[in-house]
Amino acid sequence: MTEIIKDRNLNAHILTAYEQELVSLRDKTLEMAGIVESHYTKAIDALNMQDTKAAEEISKNDYIVNKMEIEIDEACHTLIATQSPVASDLRKILVILKINNDLERVGDEAEKIARNTLEMDLNKIQKNFLNSLYHLGVESKNSINKAIDAYARQSVDSAMDVIKTDKYIDDEFESCMRQLMSFMMQDPKAIKNILDITNIAKGIERVGDHAVNIAQHTIQLVIGKDIRHTSSEQVLEEIRNNTSYKY
Amino acid sequence: MTEIIKDRNLNAHILTAYEQELVSLRDKTLEMAGIVESHYTKAIDALNMQDTKAAEEISKNDYIVNKMEIEIDEACHTLIATQSPVASDLRKILVILKINNDLERVGDEAEKIARNTLEMDLNKIQKNFLNSLYHLGVESKNSINKAIDAYARQSVDSAMDVIKTDKYIDDEFESCMRQLMSFMMQDPKAIKNILDITNIAKGIERVGDHAVNIAQHTIQLVIGKDIRHTSSEQVLEEIRNNTSYKY
Repeated sequence: MTEIIKDRNLNAHILTAYEQELVSLRDKTLEMAGIVESHYTKAIDALNMQDTKAAEEISKNDYIVNKMEIEIDEACHTLIATQSPVASDLRKILVILKINNDLERVGDEAEKIARNTLEMDLNKIQKNFLNSLYHLGVESKNSINKAIDAYARQSVDSAMDVIKTDKYIDDEFESCMRQLMSFMMQDPKAIKNILDITNIAKGIERVGDHAVNIAQHTIQLVIGKDIRHTSSEQVLEEIRNNTSYKY
Repeated sequence: MTEIIKDRNLNAHILTAYEQELVSLRDKTLEMAGIVESHYTKAIDALNMQDTKAAEEISKNDYIVNKMEIEIDEACHTLIATQSPVASDLRKILVILKINNDLERVGDEAEKIARNTLEMDLNKIQKNFLNSLYHLGVESKNSINKAIDAYARQSVDSAMDVIKTDKYIDDEFESCMRQLMSFMMQDPKAIKNILDITNIAKGIERVGDHAVNIAQHTIQLVIGKDIRHTSSEQVLEEIRNNTSYKY
């Protein structure tokens, strides 16, 4: 029995203090991602259920995300300064800096959606339209969830899926905007209220964009190349040509 | 004469290759800032002059800014990986990464404003309102200019000015939005056109926000503390308490 334990210990890789710091930085980023996802989900649900109490809570809790953003940023800076990481370790940290920024902005959108939910007159909104908006919200929520998952598992395939899905979110968003425009024309008195809803729709669409950003950062982490401002076809080509990743 | 030259040489500080790289990174960032400022100025002028030809040119030139963003990002990564900078040198590079991101987004806004200028029916816009919008555009352009200047001179005072001025831009923006809303109510058929203008107004307001971000990054560069999500009063307190900066 003692020998088995010994063997097990020999096979185990003992993390150095530096490696532990890298792992804990990644864990903290995933923890922040979880909080942001939860805030965003609650914001979308509060809108759908017209739950002003929940919306108020979310609008008050944005400081948690802001605080975490600064903590993660500082932890990244300290790790770079004290450990002088190079190659893939450095890339890990620089990608966290970028993802951290996108996560904070998703948190901001959740807060703004909650604030708009509180400001607008929910009774005046057609139930059918609220369903379309909620549907768009759920799509973008799934997109953020998949992007974070792709980052956690360093999966280029999942990240590519997120990028491809964004076209669908953009189309749904355009359809929502057309509906909102026709509501305004039909009922000019409701314009103020409808403009609040267009702000929500735009916020939701932007969350989809942040999911794409996180997916792009994840691909950069794995293949070592910045693929922003690159078409999907070019990205696939990059991935195929990349020796460190088998597609 | 020879002795004078000798003395001059003795007083001169010869830059190491690393210091030269840092300086050229900063110069490249300022070069990008200049290009972004020029795109944004042209976008605002094209809107004001209803110059569709100029708007078309700007909407086509965004790739220049995107390309520079990636080049600067990569130069920062290489410098960190090869030189293992610490303390203020590392801060300089990390701040450039952030400013680079804000500049690219200002470039994006210039491109979107140019695209909206092309899509909307400029003849239907009241001349008076166009003047208000142009005025807002000029304010945000000045704000970006001051923020870049504050970064170039590492001036906390100028950076603080940019942060304070943003309240004025926000108020002007709200006033524009109220006007646009009343136009929509008066002429529901023009709603599509007016919504394009609200997008322009929002873009302008966001440029003001990026100016604030650049100002905040500049303060972080000088005092060594991240002051995002901090009130102006707290920032002033931080600056007063900071030993490396005399206020």
